[in-house]
Amino acid sequence: MANKKPLILVTNDDGITAPGIRALISVMKDIGNVVVVAPDSPQSAMGHAITINDTLYCDPVKMTEDADHKEYSCSGTPADCVKLATQEILHRKPDLCVSGVNHGSNSSINVIYSGTMSAAVEAGVEGIPAIGFSLLDYSLEADFEPCKKYIKAITEHVLDKGLPKGVVLNVNLPKLKEKEIKGIKVCRQAKAHWVEDFDKRKSPQGRDYYWLTGEFINEDKGEDTDEWALSNGYVSVVPVQFDLTAHHFIQDLNSWELND
Amino acid sequence: MANKKPLILVTNDDGITAPGIRALISVMKDIGNVVVVAPDSPQSAMGHAITINDTLYCDPVKMTEDADHKEYSCSGTPADCVKLATQEILHRKPDLCVSGVNHGSNSSINVIYSGTMSAAVEAGVEGIPAIGFSLLDYSLEADFEPCKKYIKAITEHVLDKGLPKGVVLNVNLPKLKEKEIKGIKVCRQAKAHWVEDFDKRKSPQGRDYYWLTGEFINEDKGEDTDEWALSNGYVSVVPVQFDLTAHHFIQDLNSWELND
Repeated sequence: MANKKPLILVTNDDGITAPGIRALISVMKDIGNVVVVAPDSPQSAMGHAITINDTLYCDPVKMTEDADHKEYSCSGTPADCVKLATQEILHRKPDLCVSGVNHGSNSSINVIYSGTMSAAVEAGVEGIPAIGFSLLDYSLEADFEPCKKYIKAITEHVLDKGLPKGVVLNVNLPKLKEKEIKGIKVCRQAKAHWVEDFDKRKSPQGRDYYWLTGEFINEDKGEDTDEWALSNGYVSVVPVQFDLTAHHFIQDLNSWELND
Repeated sequence: MANKKPLILVTNDDGITAPGIRALISVMKDIGNVVVVAPDSPQSAMGHAITINDTLYCDPVKMTEDADHKEYSCSGTPADCVKLATQEILHRKPDLCVSGVNHGSNSSINVIYSGTMSAAVEAGVEGIPAIGFSLLDYSLEADFEPCKKYIKAITEHVLDKGLPKGVVLNVNLPKLKEKEIKGIKVCRQAKAHWVEDFDKRKSPQGRDYYWLTGEFINEDKGEDTDEWALSNGYVSVVPVQFDLTAHHFIQDLNSWELND
C-alpha cells in the first residue's frame, strides 16, 4: 500500500445526503482514493433487496464545491449501488467497500434487516473486502467525531491484512464521547429478536392501517456478544458470513430419512 | 398431532394471486388449519426488507367462493406479512410457517436476495418452525403438481420432529416431471455469485438508465451442494441459520490487536 493509494467504494442506506456518509467519506479520504455511489433517498430496513422489476438511475453529483472525488446518486437499494459501482462506474475492482456510517444500530439480529450491511455483503459476494459501520444514534444531529479514529483503525487493519473469502465486518459504535469509549472488541452476533407492537389506526376513509413499532429483546447474556460490548462502552466488530448453511444441523437432517 | 390439526401460516413473495401460493395452500390444507397472509403485489428480490417509513394495510380477502380458510392481503414485504400475522391476525403462535412456492430458484447465494426465504427467516427469528419452497421455473404457467408430494413429505417431517432454534429450511425443487425427480437431498449452500451485466438505455428525455441483468456463476464443484442436487434431479434441502457470525474467523480477528 506504500506507493499506491487504495481505491475505496463508499455507500450507505440512509442516502447520499445523510451526515453519516459525509463522516465516512472524510475518514476514507485520509486513507485512499474515494468513489461514492449511494442511494438518492433513504433505504433503511431494505434488507438485501435488489431492483429487478424497475429501472435504475445513477447520476454523477457534486455534493460540495471543492470535492476532488467522484460521487454518484443512485435510484436503487444499497445492494444495487454496489452492483452498479463495480460493473458500470469503477474502472477496476475496488480494494475496499465501506458502508455507512448508519444512523442507528445494526448489531445482533438487526444485521438481517440492514441495508447498510447488505451493501457490505454484496461487496463480499463479489470478492471485495467490505465493512459496514453503524452508530447507535438515530438522530440526524448525531456526533460522528468520536467514531472516526476507530473507523480509521479498523479500515487500515482490513486494508493491511485482508479478509478471508466469504467474510465481511459488521462494526457498531456506541453513542458515547471519545474518552468514554473503551476500545474495540471482536464479538459474535447476540441472539435477539424484536417483539412487534403494531400501532393500528384508521385512515380518514375508515380503512384500518398499521405502523410497525416494536421492542428489542436481547435473549443473550454472553459477554462475547456485540450487545454486551456496546452496552459496556466498546466498539463491536462481528465477522459476518453469507454462507447461511446451518452446518451443525446437516447430520440430524440426514437422519430424518426424508425419502422413506 | 393426532387429535389436533396444526396451525399453518402461509405466505410468499410473488403475491397472493400467484399460482405458486395456491399450490402451497392446497398441500397445507391436507395437513393443517391454514391462514394466509401474503403480499398484495410481487415482492421478489426484496431480501429481508421491512416497512418502517410507510403505513401497512392488511385486509381480509376471499380468493375463491368455496374457501374455508382465511386469507389476508398485505401491502408490505414478506417479512412484514409474518410480523403482522403473528402479532395482529393469528390468535396463537402458528405451529409452522411456509413460504412460497416461489416462481424461480432460491438456491445458493440467491437465498440472501430472496423474499420467500426472508419470510421463513422472520418466522424462525420469532421461534416458529419455517420452510421456504421454490420451484426452478419462473413461468406463471409453471407446473407445481410434481412438487406436491415432496412439499408434503418435508412439511410433515418438520411438524413431527421440529427444527432446532435458529434454523429454518430452504427447499428448492427442480423443474422436472414427477417420475424424473430422484428424491430429496440434504445439502449445503453452494458458493456462487452473479456477474451483473447492466443493460444501459436512454430514456425518451435523454437520461441514462439501467436494467439489472446478470449471469449466475457457480464456483462450487461440491456434490454436497444445492446446485449439484438440483442439476442432478434432486429436491434440495438446505438448513439455513440467521446467526451470521463467521465464528471461524473470530480467533484470527482477535490476533489483529485492533486496540494497539
